[in-house]
Amino acid sequence: MTPDGPSAATGEAEFLDALRRLPLHPGARGLADDAAVLDVAPLVVTTDTLVEHVHFLSDDPPEDIAWKLMAVNLSDLAAKGAVPEGVMLSYPLSVRDWDMRFLRGLGVAIGRWDAPLVGGDTVSLPAGAPRVLTLVAFGRDAVAPVRSGARAGDTLWVTGTIGDAGEGLRIARGEAPHDAGLVARYCRPMPRLGEGRALGPVVNAMSDVSDGLLIDARRMAAASGLSVAIDLADVPLSPALRARCGDGPDARLAAASAGDDYELLFALPPGVVPPVAATRVGGFDAGAGLVLAHAGVPVAAPVRLGYEHAR
Amino acid sequence: MTPDGPSAATGEAEFLDALRRLPLHPGARGLADDAAVLDVAPLVVTTDTLVEHVHFLSDDPPEDIAWKLMAVNLSDLAAKGAVPEGVMLSYPLSVRDWDMRFLRGLGVAIGRWDAPLVGGDTVSLPAGAPRVLTLVAFGRDAVAPVRSGARAGDTLWVTGTIGDAGEGLRIARGEAPHDAGLVARYCRPMPRLGEGRALGPVVNAMSDVSDGLLIDARRMAAASGLSVAIDLADVPLSPALRARCGDGPDARLAAASAGDDYELLFALPPGVVPPVAATRVGGFDAGAGLVLAHAGVPVAAPVRLGYEHAR
Repeated sequence: MTPDGPSAATGEAEFLDALRRLPLHPGARGLADDAAVLDVAPLVVTTDTLVEHVHFLSDDPPEDIAWKLMAVNLSDLAAKGAVPEGVMLSYPLSVRDWDMRFLRGLGVAIGRWDAPLVGGDTVSLPAGAPRVLTLVAFGRDAVAPVRSGARAGDTLWVTGTIGDAGEGLRIARGEAPHDAGLVARYCRPMPRLGEGRALGPVVNAMSDVSDGLLIDARRMAAASGLSVAIDLADVPLSPALRARCGDGPDARLAAASAGDDYELLFALPPGVVPPVAATRVGGFDAGAGLVLAHAGVPVAAPVRLGYEHAR
Repeated sequence: MTPDGPSAATGEAEFLDALRRLPLHPGARGLADDAAVLDVAPLVVTTDTLVEHVHFLSDDPPEDIAWKLMAVNLSDLAAKGAVPEGVMLSYPLSVRDWDMRFLRGLGVAIGRWDAPLVGGDTVSLPAGAPRVLTLVAFGRDAVAPVRSGARAGDTLWVTGTIGDAGEGLRIARGEAPHDAGLVARYCRPMPRLGEGRALGPVVNAMSDVSDGLLIDARRMAAASGLSVAIDLADVPLSPALRARCGDGPDARLAAASAGDDYELLFALPPGVVPPVAATRVGGFDAGAGLVLAHAGVPVAAPVRLGYEHAR
């Protein structure tokens, strides 16, 4: 971040002043330098970008978007069993009210997870361009399990419940009746940092569930050179989701191919019990691909396993 | 970066395959994981974002934009006297030809500066949205001088020549006659990494010149709690720029308030001679603000000292 002299456009100077009032990392040098210095090794680094109209809606509250930008990045740290060290923001200035609300939300999330600001960049966008928000998260003290470490015979587990955020998105779009708890799962995801810390030393492989349980499990299997079997009847659904969508194979398939859960998905050696609350949903074997069933009865895998970028 | 299964949109899978063929950092884990691990401390981190229509033109060659994205980030490392360790990319997929040309250019720049890919994120943008390209650069072995370290009595120096890239931009916009050398200064900036390494141990303060000599000098002075005096007659202009713009105060003022030079600007204690080729352009004193002269005759500072973001 570069500070501006007295001739600066008020907007950017104001924004940088507000940024500097957020909790800053000691290595941020007060956001007055070209670069920051982190004295942590090994350091886990990850980045996730949220795009207006793609990852969030224009009328979503900016505070929620700031929270989500933090949460999706910290969820990647959770999957590595890391403790947040700090974050770096690339931010497109827009209108003052939106920007200041975003910063307030960012401040809340920074405080919530003790992930102070390390640095960043502010840019201007052409008029009317969708916002593109990029955050980098840095983590320390990680065991850093890999996605590709699953072994044939490992069991597959997931924390929490699946599909709530997908239903929350439908509600936010006006496609389903309101439910505050489900909307919160979409707007205010909670990265599983504590669970990730506990799981790191015992798992063979771990990732978060960001694009959907099925596709993220399929990716873990592919990275590990294995096939993965999932029984939809074992996929954990919340009472709120069951109450409105039922408990049948279709509802479970929809939940397992919705995105934005930000739960942890992990492979454990046979017989090992996870040290945190989690549900066993399947297992790994030789071969390739996803083998889907419902209560033991084979089910054809859908064409769309989860959220994917398209051109 | 998350790998895609066989059901992935071809575009993203293709792009990720091409990314994986670039030189990868060992900590990148083959771009198959949620996060990367860097085992370097202290680590210098910086990020710069380039926006279509703002920082580059839509018909600029994608190879040049990739080069520039690398160069502007590595220039921040140069200002900290760091050696490039790697880069992380946040990339919006667009059309195949543009994306693949961009990656080819990125590969050339990665090879040129030995800054392998550490990780990143790919996203989709809404149709017609301007590209927003974010790179993070990591550096090692830095002395990491601060911008704020100048002292009263220090001399102010700059490497290379100033204003060439500003004229190169005018050429690219069709506002000035062609000159390959000047265009190259705009399209293919060269971060002063070697100079930064040599200067790191001897300077009191250092930054790069990204937004313009005057504004960046003014920022260094403000960060250091000092005033800075610059004599325009001492600002180094290239023979090509002099040949077309002349050598008078107006041409020198234009050069010193144009951006994109990516030279190094640094403060040296009185009497210290820089260990690299550089030109003395002024000095620091008590007080605040920018004191401008031309050959010793006071000149009023312009309202616009350089490139600044506006809303």
